[in-house]
Amino acid sequence: MKILLVGASGTIGQAVHAALSPRHEILSASRSGDLAIDITDPDSIRGAFEKAGPVDAVVSTAGGVHFGPLPDMDAGKYEIGLKDKLMGQVNLVLIGRDYVAEGGSFTLTSGILTRDPIRFGSSASMVNGALEAFARAAAIEMTKGHRINVVSPGLLQESAAALGGYFPGHDPVPGKRVALGYAKSVEGAQTGQVFEIF
Amino acid sequence: MKILLVGASGTIGQAVHAALSPRHEILSASRSGDLAIDITDPDSIRGAFEKAGPVDAVVSTAGGVHFGPLPDMDAGKYEIGLKDKLMGQVNLVLIGRDYVAEGGSFTLTSGILTRDPIRFGSSASMVNGALEAFARAAAIEMTKGHRINVVSPGLLQESAAALGGYFPGHDPVPGKRVALGYAKSVEGAQTGQVFEIF
Repeated sequence: MKILLVGASGTIGQAVHAALSPRHEILSASRSGDLAIDITDPDSIRGAFEKAGPVDAVVSTAGGVHFGPLPDMDAGKYEIGLKDKLMGQVNLVLIGRDYVAEGGSFTLTSGILTRDPIRFGSSASMVNGALEAFARAAAIEMTKGHRINVVSPGLLQESAAALGGYFPGHDPVPGKRVALGYAKSVEGAQTGQVFEIF
Repeated sequence: MKILLVGASGTIGQAVHAALSPRHEILSASRSGDLAIDITDPDSIRGAFEKAGPVDAVVSTAGGVHFGPLPDMDAGKYEIGLKDKLMGQVNLVLIGRDYVAEGGSFTLTSGILTRDPIRFGSSASMVNGALEAFARAAAIEMTKGHRINVVSPGLLQESAAALGGYFPGHDPVPGKRVALGYAKSVEGAQTGQVFEIF
């Protein structure tokens, strides 16, 4: 398959690339590089799809949110995640559906905070919950036989040294195991699912 | 208790009013009327809290989303629900925390489409999923002993004649039973919960 991987330079993106590249042609898109994409900008998304040409699958491991204590959160700080990790990934679907082949798939990324919140993570939880429910709903109305799933990773082992302090009691997951969720979504036949890898 | 009920004129709002008014003082807020509020406008929210004075609980049964077939959905149509039902209700919490008494509570409204999607409902699902995960996360960081829960109602019996055709196979729930979820949230002691009434 020809797979557009958005967020390829990130920790999860690299793990997905390692897992899928032996079996598929991966087009790596990131904020910079050959196939540059800014998912907060619909024109940039459209440009990346135009440059990539038709693909069989889109995998997104991209999207930022603001982390901060609830007492300091305001509408503008929630807006960051709504525009970036939520609508950025949703726009990959809304725009990408014109470029993805019949029977192709979209795989987005949420995260464990949907269910298992941490301090400072209320925006991440909000956005993750939105993505998971969106995918369940969108799946029943996709056209062209498109499928859509979400992978919800736990804290990655590769990120545990830097971020583990914010995730007390969380059991870090190897990137290699997280990548299996993306393989299941892309190579399997399920749709409207949340693959929780934690 | 003194309870600010936002969305008082709606079907769920009326059921909540009927259930809670025998035991509490209810301040009814709606788009029009004595205590007018537009939850998409933070200034309007602040004005309503100023007019209401200190309260012990905020119950929101307010918030619109765009319903439409997925192929017709675009970022602007999702934005409607993100601004209204999602951030409108979240702003009730962010602004209301200054006006709600120590140990008070916030109760927001999501809906069955988080888990059990229908055609045309991808925006509602997105917003409901966001609200539920937000409440779980915010609950662990609330100050002043504030609690926060979400009630997720199914299709109301009172709405079934008008809307039932969009909800094939759904079992309509009496407003009176949905109102119990709000009573549990306001009068009970739980926090960070989603009370599913369907």
